Amino acid sequence: MDQDLYKIRHSLAHVLAQAVLEIRPGSTLGFGPPIDDGFYYDFVLSEPLSDEDLPAIEKKMKHIIKQGQKFESQELPAEEAFALIRDEMGEPYKLEYAQDLVNKNGLETLTFYRNGPFLDMCEGPHVEQTRQLPKAAFKLRSIAGAYWRGDSDNTMMTRIYAWAFKTREELDARLKEHKLALERDHKRLGKTMDLFVIDDEIGKGLPLWMPNGTVIRDELEKLARELEFADGYQRVSTPVLAKTSLYERTGHLPYYAEGMYPFMELKDRGEDGEELVKESYVLKPMNCPHHHKIFDARLRSYRDLPIRYAEYGLCHRYEDSGALSGLLRVRGMCMNDAHIYCTEEQIKEEFIKVMRLHQKVYAVLGMDNYWMRLSTWDPEDPRGKEKYVDDPEAWEFSTVAIRDAMDEIGIEYEEVKGEGAFYGPKIDVQFRTVTGREETASTNQLDFAVPGRLGLTYIDADGNKKHPWCLHRAPLGTHERFVAFLVEHYGGAFPTWLAPRQVIVEPIADVFGGYAQGIVDRLRGHMVRAEVDLSTDTLNKRIRNAVTSKIPNVLVVGEREQEEGTVTLRRYGSREQTSMSVDEFETRILAAIKDRAAQV
Amino acid sequence: MDQDLYKIRHSLAHVLAQAVLEIRPGSTLGFGPPIDDGFYYDFVLSEPLSDEDLPAIEKKMKHIIKQGQKFESQELPAEEAFALIRDEMGEPYKLEYAQDLVNKNGLETLTFYRNGPFLDMCEGPHVEQTRQLPKAAFKLRSIAGAYWRGDSDNTMMTRIYAWAFKTREELDARLKEHKLALERDHKRLGKTMDLFVIDDEIGKGLPLWMPNGTVIRDELEKLARELEFADGYQRVSTPVLAKTSLYERTGHLPYYAEGMYPFMELKDRGEDGEELVKESYVLKPMNCPHHHKIFDARLRSYRDLPIRYAEYGLCHRYEDSGALSGLLRVRGMCMNDAHIYCTEEQIKEEFIKVMRLHQKVYAVLGMDNYWMRLSTWDPEDPRGKEKYVDDPEAWEFSTVAIRDAMDEIGIEYEEVKGEGAFYGPKIDVQFRTVTGREETASTNQLDFAVPGRLGLTYIDADGNKKHPWCLHRAPLGTHERFVAFLVEHYGGAFPTWLAPRQVIVEPIADVFGGYAQGIVDRLRGHMVRAEVDLSTDTLNKRIRNAVTSKIPNVLVVGEREQEEGTVTLRRYGSREQTSMSVDEFETRILAAIKDRAAQV
Repeated sequence: MDQDLYKIRHSLAHVLAQAVLEIRPGSTLGFGPPIDDGFYYDFVLSEPLSDEDLPAIEKKMKHIIKQGQKFESQELPAEEAFALIRDEMGEPYKLEYAQDLVNKNGLETLTFYRNGPFLDMCEGPHVEQTRQLPKAAFKLRSIAGAYWRGDSDNTMMTRIYAWAFKTREELDARLKEHKLALERDHKRLGKTMDLFVIDDEIGKGLPLWMPNGTVIRDELEKLARELEFADGYQRVSTPVLAKTSLYERTGHLPYYAEGMYPFMELKDRGEDGEELVKESYVLKPMNCPHHHKIFDARLRSYRDLPIRYAEYGLCHRYEDSGALSGLLRVRGMCMNDAHIYCTEEQIKEEFIKVMRLHQKVYAVLGMDNYWMRLSTWDPEDPRGKEKYVDDPEAWEFSTVAIRDAMDEIGIEYEEVKGEGAFYGPKIDVQFRTVTGREETASTNQLDFAVPGRLGLTYIDADGNKKHPWCLHRAPLGTHERFVAFLVEHYGGAFPTWLAPRQVIVEPIADVFGGYAQGIVDRLRGHMVRAEVDLSTDTLNKRIRNAVTSKIPNVLVVGEREQEEGTVTLRRYGSREQTSMSVDEFETRILAAIKDRAAQV
Repeated sequence: MDQDLYKIRHSLAHVLAQAVLEIRPGSTLGFGPPIDDGFYYDFVLSEPLSDEDLPAIEKKMKHIIKQGQKFESQELPAEEAFALIRDEMGEPYKLEYAQDLVNKNGLETLTFYRNGPFLDMCEGPHVEQTRQLPKAAFKLRSIAGAYWRGDSDNTMMTRIYAWAFKTREELDARLKEHKLALERDHKRLGKTMDLFVIDDEIGKGLPLWMPNGTVIRDELEKLARELEFADGYQRVSTPVLAKTSLYERTGHLPYYAEGMYPFMELKDRGEDGEELVKESYVLKPMNCPHHHKIFDARLRSYRDLPIRYAEYGLCHRYEDSGALSGLLRVRGMCMNDAHIYCTEEQIKEEFIKVMRLHQKVYAVLGMDNYWMRLSTWDPEDPRGKEKYVDDPEAWEFSTVAIRDAMDEIGIEYEEVKGEGAFYGPKIDVQFRTVTGREETASTNQLDFAVPGRLGLTYIDADGNKKHPWCLHRAPLGTHERFVAFLVEHYGGAFPTWLAPRQVIVEPIADVFGGYAQGIVDRLRGHMVRAEVDLSTDTLNKRIRNAVTSKIPNVLVVGEREQEEGTVTLRRYGSREQTSMSVDEFETRILAAIKDRAAQV
């Protein structure tokens, strides 16, 4: 955030606090910082506020802005500052914080800013006076609860969020994105489109995929299968659990134990009556060790490499229930996973192939707003030895290999220290969604450590055993996150190949029902998801319903169509009607599905 | 087993015992009954025997047979009998058994049979004399360990198994089946064909599917998907676990708890320091409740029925480790499951549709040696109230509905009391495998109880809520059992559509490598699993290897083929070579894959 925007947001937060204290005298204050797209302020209110009060607060804020209150700073020694906060301001939470700044962080003086009647302890900076604040470029957004200093043992405060920008245009753009996000929210559309359901008796974070959602999963898996077949991958299928001891040997356990489901333990009584764990299983949190086991099941030669194992593998992580959210944050996730075992010489070529596969996937799905991030270790990090495998040479070699690959394929990227996996560097693909959110879409990781730890080897040309390198990649991420993303991306209006319902045939009157059914039978013979609209509504109502359901192809058939063997096609999102023979429609839709075209 | 065959097998067992006692004097006897395809006898040997000793024992047996020893019976009062066994025979295990027969079962006399020097306590009947035994129709099979009276706390005895029939022809047929079973054993072929591997660090009974095995799974799932789409099923996808409490409500827990994996329990300390289970999850042992949850997630009308949910759902059952065997008996199984929710009036039609689907599957796979069994409850069973839902009217109605459906479709079946599911009657499909084993291939169950227990309803035409009926069906069983069965069924020589490797191109010399690769690239563009043979062996050796690997289509290409744009096809199992254009081969193989033809 640039300094000017920071000043605007920070100053507006003070104006908000002043307005709230006028409307709710006797309230006390928490923190009020600028954030990504605006600011917030936390309060312990003398009387509650609700969303309906926000316009009145905004009005009060605009009134304050017009007054041209000057921001003036003042620096006080610690003891004087404490007295000011306690006696003049009467702010117990600010006092606690001020004492911490002095006693724990060793500050000797504290800074205050005053504008009009409002006084706050704060580092600044601020605008010179409130008339410099853009009245039309901010908007109070919502009210939420928040614990003082983020700790659930502390007081619950009321947080008021606001958007704030330099110009009205920027605010309007953000409001538009926000409206779109609400409309396209995957939880809302997931319900109206019957994609998935979460049931408390099955468990939180464990979505049940309904027929419409399963179609999308199946189509994505088909896409992955085709692209992966072309790139020489072989599919495998592995169990969802393993002996707990496996993860001790891979080294995952210390990093992941917290996030795993509880262990399944078979117990026995020992001779002294004590309980002994005879066997212990756990749901796998990742697929890698399972694929490694398949690699390790046979003797491998350098001539066999690269070996590429792909699986939509089901992993489980016991996320905190508070963190769960629809499909975006779940406990059971099906991952478009693959592991590529190769020699050192093959790394660059395989890495390039994987990045090209990513690009193909994004092209099919019309995702163009993305950028790449190379995450490496941070050798200076004091916790580095716990976070990363300590092999500077391997880190250097693998990071250079990725840089070379990225340069050769001509993809730009930014480099971030300290965000690598524990076993090696990685490329994350970041997306800006249509609703303005930044997302990690997929990741491509280089692993120089785990194959060695598990003792994986191949016989090299010189007859010696060597550890293979391993690439972990997942261009389509997990079904759960990716479907959530696509629902938002398309706003539920999926292209024909992905649409749960691809074609609906609308007979103008009952007598054309037979003709309609014949068309549906033909299409279904080619596995096209076609249906006749059997409802008794009027034609207009039926067409409106089909549009509301975002079915990409509506075929209207009546006397003329039946006589001529044609259909009248209305594509979703278009008012145009096109007449064509049934043969032509069949050819067109089969081609559109095969090519995954935007429309038929 | 008819009386004559029983006499033969039982008498041969005595002859075996006599022979063993001659070869290992001082040995003592256990039991020696006739069994399904022969007989066995258990011994505590004075000195061990191995498979190599079997021919000598057989020779001795034939010698005894030739002597024409007469079988003579004698009945003795209890005390005299005990004295005979103890003093003349010197058989401690027989004595223990004789005492049980008298003291526990209340017998007053015991029967003995003598032939030549051999005396045994036994009920008979026997042949009149040993010359009546068919010398050429029996064969000693193997030696195994067995506990006295099947109890692992007792002495371990040595059991000698034998095949025995009335005629040499019957023995030969059995020997041939046995040889085939050994050759086609799915564990052996599973290893040589790289289908699956079981790793102790993952867990017993949890196969890892290698690329070749995964191809077969994927093709079977594709077959199911196509047939099910045509029959109006909708695919769903559900989690592999659920809260443990769900299975209390469904009523499964008392029936299945023993066979489940240990629960995943999140624990907390209560106020008094005691451990409390906060949440408990368990791997699902079946898919039904998950599908029921999807049905129940929305309001359903009679107009929506039938609703058919299909899923290759992953279930887990913690089978005893001693019972596990390759893919045939596992702990994690992926089931070709579906649940059909319908009204009472729709049961018959849906049941018929399901049976027809079974027939389609069997026709595709060339399985014709099957018969059907209708299993119902047994209202007279004293444990009936625990084993079955006690609703005589529903049992009667549903059994009649199945009989009607089976009669209408013209499928014969036998009816068995007391083998139904707890929630209703079922049809089991029994197979005779190529190796002579009887198998339950799949099952189709009618459920009148669980939907009600879970409170599933639909709004009927009269506006009232009703419980739907439910059909559970799985024509392709589980991937694990079904692939094991198919490996044996085809002996690893899969038809093209199922074959992990469909086409191998053999260039006559290196210079035709480019032409070969071009053909492979074309075929792979259509997702055909084709490859060029890159090994440096001679052409003959390469073709032999391809045949050993049972690749269904071997294409030989040389100068003539390259000039004419043709290939020379050698089909697996045929010495014939057919020349055709690449275009023609492509058309043919794509059609054979699509139609799942026996050959290209």
